Amino acid sequence: MTIDVGILGATGAVGQQFIALLAGHPWFRIAWLGASQRSEGKPYRDATSWRLPAPIADDIARLPVRPATPADAPRLVFSALDAGVAGEIEGAFAEAGHLIVSNSRNYRMDPTVPLLIPEVNADHLALLRAQGNARGWKGRIVTNPNCSTVVLSMALAPLRQFGLSKVMVTTLQAVSGAGYPGVPSWDILGNVIPFIEGEEEKIETETKKILGCLREGRVDPHPVTISAQTTRVAVQNGHTVSVSVAFDNPPPREAIVDALVSFKGRPQDHHLPSAPSRPIVYLSERNRPQPVLDAGRDGGMTVSVGRLRACPLFDYKFIALGHNTIRGAAGAAILNAELMHQDGLL
Amino acid sequence: MTIDVGILGATGAVGQQFIALLAGHPWFRIAWLGASQRSEGKPYRDATSWRLPAPIADDIARLPVRPATPADAPRLVFSALDAGVAGEIEGAFAEAGHLIVSNSRNYRMDPTVPLLIPEVNADHLALLRAQGNARGWKGRIVTNPNCSTVVLSMALAPLRQFGLSKVMVTTLQAVSGAGYPGVPSWDILGNVIPFIEGEEEKIETETKKILGCLREGRVDPHPVTISAQTTRVAVQNGHTVSVSVAFDNPPPREAIVDALVSFKGRPQDHHLPSAPSRPIVYLSERNRPQPVLDAGRDGGMTVSVGRLRACPLFDYKFIALGHNTIRGAAGAAILNAELMHQDGLL
Amino acid sequence: MTIDVGILGATGAVGQQFIALLAGHPWFRIAWLGASQRSEGKPYRDATSWRLPAPIADDIARLPVRPATPADAPRLVFSALDAGVAGEIEGAFAEAGHLIVSNSRNYRMDPTVPLLIPEVNADHLALLRAQGNARGWKGRIVTNPNCSTVVLSMALAPLRQFGLSKVMVTTLQAVSGAGYPGVPSWDILGNVIPFIEGEEEKIETETKKILGCLREGRVDPHPVTISAQTTRVAVQNGHTVSVSVAFDNPPPREAIVDALVSFKGRPQDHHLPSAPSRPIVYLSERNRPQPVLDAGRDGGMTVSVGRLRACPLFDYKFIALGHNTIRGAAGAAILNAELMHQDGLL
Amino acid sequence: MTIDVGILGATGAVGQQFIALLAGHPWFRIAWLGASQRSEGKPYRDATSWRLPAPIADDIARLPVRPATPADAPRLVFSALDAGVAGEIEGAFAEAGHLIVSNSRNYRMDPTVPLLIPEVNADHLALLRAQGNARGWKGRIVTNPNCSTVVLSMALAPLRQFGLSKVMVTTLQAVSGAGYPGVPSWDILGNVIPFIEGEEEKIETETKKILGCLREGRVDPHPVTISAQTTRVAVQNGHTVSVSVAFDNPPPREAIVDALVSFKGRPQDHHLPSAPSRPIVYLSERNRPQPVLDAGRDGGMTVSVGRLRACPLFDYKFIALGHNTIRGAAGAAILNAELMHQDGLL
Repeated sequence: MTIDVGILGATGAVGQQFIALLAGHPWFRIAWLGASQRSEGKPYRDATSWRLPAPIADDIARLPVRPATPADAPRLVFSALDAGVAGEIEGAFAEAGHLIVSNSRNYRMDPTVPLLIPEVNADHLALLRAQGNARGWKGRIVTNPNCSTVVLSMALAPLRQFGLSKVMVTTLQAVSGAGYPGVPSWDILGNVIPFIEGEEEKIETETKKILGCLREGRVDPHPVTISAQTTRVAVQNGHTVSVSVAFDNPPPREAIVDALVSFKGRPQDHHLPSAPSRPIVYLSERNRPQPVLDAGRDGGMTVSVGRLRACPLFDYKFIALGHNTIRGAAGAAILNAELMHQDGLL
Repeated sequence: MTIDVGILGATGAVGQQFIALLAGHPWFRIAWLGASQRSEGKPYRDATSWRLPAPIADDIARLPVRPATPADAPRLVFSALDAGVAGEIEGAFAEAGHLIVSNSRNYRMDPTVPLLIPEVNADHLALLRAQGNARGWKGRIVTNPNCSTVVLSMALAPLRQFGLSKVMVTTLQAVSGAGYPGVPSWDILGNVIPFIEGEEEKIETETKKILGCLREGRVDPHPVTISAQTTRVAVQNGHTVSVSVAFDNPPPREAIVDALVSFKGRPQDHHLPSAPSRPIVYLSERNRPQPVLDAGRDGGMTVSVGRLRACPLFDYKFIALGHNTIRGAAGAAILNAELMHQDGLL
Repeated sequence: MTIDVGILGATGAVGQQFIALLAGHPWFRIAWLGASQRSEGKPYRDATSWRLPAPIADDIARLPVRPATPADAPRLVFSALDAGVAGEIEGAFAEAGHLIVSNSRNYRMDPTVPLLIPEVNADHLALLRAQGNARGWKGRIVTNPNCSTVVLSMALAPLRQFGLSKVMVTTLQAVSGAGYPGVPSWDILGNVIPFIEGEEEKIETETKKILGCLREGRVDPHPVTISAQTTRVAVQNGHTVSVSVAFDNPPPREAIVDALVSFKGRPQDHHLPSAPSRPIVYLSERNRPQPVLDAGRDGGMTVSVGRLRACPLFDYKFIALGHNTIRGAAGAAILNAELMHQDGLL
Repeated sequence: MTIDVGILGATGAVGQQFIALLAGHPWFRIAWLGASQRSEGKPYRDATSWRLPAPIADDIARLPVRPATPADAPRLVFSALDAGVAGEIEGAFAEAGHLIVSNSRNYRMDPTVPLLIPEVNADHLALLRAQGNARGWKGRIVTNPNCSTVVLSMALAPLRQFGLSKVMVTTLQAVSGAGYPGVPSWDILGNVIPFIEGEEEKIETETKKILGCLREGRVDPHPVTISAQTTRVAVQNGHTVSVSVAFDNPPPREAIVDALVSFKGRPQDHHLPSAPSRPIVYLSERNRPQPVLDAGRDGGMTVSVGRLRACPLFDYKFIALGHNTIRGAAGAAILNAELMHQDGLL
């Protein structure tokens, strides 16, 4: 009953995270690793510079790295490709009949591609029906959001019921979000870099699609207006977001906490393997959440929220935090694939 | 023509910064150092644990530390006292006829105490006339703002002409703002702490007083509404603020840049010794300002602004940065005293 | 079959680590938490400022904190007390009949107190027989070494067979080794502090006792001469040591690697609950071990060694690394207690 | 009387440091900037990504970047080229008659190339006479040591009089020593990397040449044996070295301190513009030197030593520290050129 999976971009930082998270997965078994030409043919151990604390499992370490072409890859392929090559390669795989569950940004805003957070918009998988016709693909592509967008979107999803209208957000993002080698230490030691290329646009547009409604086979973006400033800080893992929100119908504070902690979705209903018991935890200590203490909750799949209080300008302000390479990347894609399996789409 | 000055709280982090900045000052000469009882009588070198890169001048190192009582202190005294004791001690000095130029928060919001940034509200010194009657003091107290408030207020001051109405701000603050020993390394290495005790209230209230108008001998707070979230990051020096602003009469972007870079005040007109040639510099690189590169501009007295662009929710958003222990503490107080000297108040 | 245990100094950094490591322990159940007077009577949750990523278990969080007096404490008590008070309190507990398994330095060099690393000198437990008479205690005290000493001693223990004669060591130690609040961030961000109070003496003396032979009921210190320089670096967890060693009978390089990786002791023989499968791992990558990647191996109980190569002055040089609050503190004490249980001493 | 100079590798990290240090130099004026082909023709401002706190002077910012060929370069050229290209390019310049004062490692160990620290071995400039014949160059090459070697060699130079025989050293090196982008933040945040490619060999061989004696036109390497372990730590600037030394004739401790603090050389005798008043400062505080506090002494040209005490294995141990991109790179080369000017070699 095990499903063979492949990983595109297996030697990079997110590729390594996929391998670490899939070790011992009850459904998925890594059978194929694809990467750029210069790694081709090498055993994975020699093709990558492994940077995660958990060692590589021996059987994965010995897998030969394949070229990034469909050929002999399994039907289900996770993609951790760089955006510079993901568009073409993922398209070729979809055309050849593969199901691509991608962390790359290239197809996220395509109207027939689900931009999925299983607890938030599982119904967006219905876009896949139109995708084949629109694209002429035998296979399909499903994407997860940008790493800081996931954190924000999960914290906002339970609040849609109150008529979410405005969101002002400043992010403090971890260096692992930039991949490897990513941010030079020269730039970030004891420093803040108040700019991340393309990140603010992603937050401002992806969030609206994620929170949007499926109507007649299309996603209507959520009407919320979002303004983002994004910064990089000297943190290894965990994106922190400072948020102010305005509602059409502002509820009392307790209703918001209730909405956050009682929030759940299909991953929880079906006990999907990577689903946290609660997607969102609310921390009542006044100085939480913090990346070092909270990013790893529930295997890095839970978003932590704290400091909810009235905002003098909007209705409420709060801090949210999530693990950017797990809930914000590899773990997000794996949960997407688990939901697709549950839905009989694999 | 040299004016003898004293320093209250001379052994702490801000006290050390006062001593470093006053070394070689053209007008002021350190003649008296006051600290808590346990340091009394020791030469300064032995009473403090000096933590600044520049060594202590020998003559200061040998000065005996005095108790924090008015007795033999010079008329002009800078205060770097902890808030826990500053209220009582500064009051006693003022009562005894001293001019206290304080970095402590205790008297900042007192209606007869100037909360001064010389480029922004030099006219608030007029409050001093009423202070004597109101307090029954022979001396006077003048204060500078909280370290993150200075950065925000300086960036906003040139924008008052456009009818400043709303300010949403998230701060990323350096550890030196918490004094010494301050933030444990256990808490901040690779981390973000999304809470600083009392800091948000200070930003939300002090800024309105600083930007307010003097009318009939009183300060009318500026009508702007401010909402702040404050965080601590692993930076040594330099508070970064992420700001969105709404105006009654939003100007074109270029008018804002012009207002920022052409901003100046009495310190520049009179070439006060600690005045930067320009209080605000606008950086056009898309990833600036940054604490490591920009906090020290013009001896740490210049605020750097960058990334000015339209905000989808308010009118504009931008990043500002300033040196928290210089422009945000000791340097601020010294510039206050220089302005007072220029005004014949010493 | 569960054994109730107490923790002295339960609210501090090492006390928290004890609680985290004992959660779900198969033999030991936390039944009693002792701390200083100001915490007395409070539920543990309110008495401590919990700083570990793993949350406190609910039943521990509700335990009332007791005064640090023997009274109602269980027979087996772990001690994480500060050295300033540990001498007196641990002595009082031992006198009252308790078994104190202590991380504090106070009794480590006492000739009748075992300074124990179960893989290295399990036979030193025999000192306990003399301890009762020498001290007049009904109970006993067993200690584990200083956190950097553990790392060095474990790496050296398998090399005793080659006639260990000289050890030159420079340490690069994590901030968590200084407890909480410990090292101010002001001092360590982007910095190195080349001094740790008392640390070099501990390494130079404790190691000789640990590696020493039990003869006629006493420990003869090992004749090796050790010279240590200790530094603090901006690392959260994991002490790195740079070592050069000279032997009486220098073996070929491979014999050393073999000695390291095949090293094991009674914890491995008896599969003690906290025993790593291998106490020492040798990493062949040329840039390992590293604190972030390797300190947590096998739950933080394994010491990692790498870069073994010829030394132009002594025989060999290498790098070793261990987790200072687990193998170097709380985990060390728990393994000591497990060995004592195995030996029927509890 | 101003001497025009060029800078090869002007756009890199060390190239930028050359430009910052030469701003306002009393003798040298930057007239030519050379870099790789892709920068050719651009104004310097656009060809580099300036990363130093001090802004680029306007006249330098406008200088067009030239190809790295001799053509129109001034006679005196500083080289900050990467080792991968420095061998060929520096050779071509020397052949064409230029004086190359290089920070690159390629020619350091060439028997006719001075490996110069002006305070230590100014007489090694005499090698230049043989260089022309040996190499067939019209011009000449002079080099400065590797950044960690400078710190060690300067601390050892005053101790040669005691018969320096053995040196065991462990380094803790700043990230700026690896240039830009250099060390990925992913690798070094909260971490130690116990390996720097080629660094230990450089320390073990370069130091012997630097401390060697000029005899009959050749340098006899100093007979000292050195063993080095090198590590990278999360420090921006400043290499710390932990050293143990053995002497043929060990002096009393005070004689060593005297030798260090009274050490001076031709740069001090002739008051060369970049010469610190004292090349070595001894700090008596028990926790110094530290990179953040001490690396910048005297403009970064002074080496700080502290913690001198007896070593149980050798004679003494101590800590030394120097600024790796100033005294260890660009500042070193500039001081070399100043000495050559003083000697009439320019």
